[in-house]
Amino acid sequence: MGRWEPNARGRLELAALELYGENGYDQTTVAEIAKRAGLTERTFFRHFADKREVLFYGAPILQGWLVDGINDAPGGLSPIDVIGAALEAGTRFLGERRDLARQRYAIVLATPELQERELIKLATLATALADALRGRGVPDPAAPLAAEAGVAVFKVAFQRWVTSADEDSLAQIIRETMSGLKTMTAGAT
Amino acid sequence: MGRWEPNARGRLELAALELYGENGYDQTTVAEIAKRAGLTERTFFRHFADKREVLFYGAPILQGWLVDGINDAPGGLSPIDVIGAALEAGTRFLGERRDLARQRYAIVLATPELQERELIKLATLATALADALRGRGVPDPAAPLAAEAGVAVFKVAFQRWVTSADEDSLAQIIRETMSGLKTMTAGAT
Repeated sequence: MGRWEPNARGRLELAALELYGENGYDQTTVAEIAKRAGLTERTFFRHFADKREVLFYGAPILQGWLVDGINDAPGGLSPIDVIGAALEAGTRFLGERRDLARQRYAIVLATPELQERELIKLATLATALADALRGRGVPDPAAPLAAEAGVAVFKVAFQRWVTSADEDSLAQIIRETMSGLKTMTAGAT
Repeated sequence: MGRWEPNARGRLELAALELYGENGYDQTTVAEIAKRAGLTERTFFRHFADKREVLFYGAPILQGWLVDGINDAPGGLSPIDVIGAALEAGTRFLGERRDLARQRYAIVLATPELQERELIKLATLATALADALRGRGVPDPAAPLAAEAGVAVFKVAFQRWVTSADEDSLAQIIRETMSGLKTMTAGAT
């Protein structure tokens, strides 16, 4: 009881993603996740509030990295380049989690409740990015516009990262997608 | 029974918005809405599936207008200008509904369940716009990128339209916001 379990959190996450993928999210119980991980339900609940949190505990962490990226961006950058720099810097740590991100993406896509949660996550992120831009002195409506455009780039790039076969890093795909947005708007009348 | 009630739908919508604003969405019942409108619950359910639909019946209509706007846009426009033209054309009919839109916006903002529904509406819209662009031969990732950027512009412009005191039309605010996005990305490195 209370015994230290090496990497319990990581083992529970892997077990949960496996079971959600095999049997569906709705059909999977916490008891099954704990059993697959070789741990107890009690240990599960020391790490996660419920089975949904296994899929979303990273959201505030990612948001924190992106907000840090905005705060740390060099002065003199335009709002959209601050967002671009933050997206590249803030998603650097996701690189090694690509296989997990792919598994997670397929599960979220298959479950309406999780899709809704994902949309809330992205809307919350856009609000936080806009606030961080305001903190750098970017006025409205430039702050929410750059934040929403940044989340648009993130969504498109992330989807490409988890669904395409090529080995480009997420940061690289974000850079290309942001560049695509600039080209697209520059070419327009 | 089955008797024709002049503009029952509009009266029910007005009554519902009033009551949601006065007492809160969660606290309002269909019986109260029908009573306020001087109609029966039976008439309510001939027009709306439930009290949430009063706030969201317009979503597929708006989406249809925007998709029509993409299909009808002149050839030779860039994807982002197709989206801009569709947003301006497709929201033209919202002009006369500004007071209703303001009331509705305040209610949605006050109720988490409705905010989630609103996010789903916008995500569904982005998917439909991307598909309509693909129908014009726009490839990926330009199609989803232009669609997501368009929804970003729509969100920021719509929020300004329902919260600001000035009398600019939604189409005018959309034009300015799209122009702001272009300036922002053009000025960037």
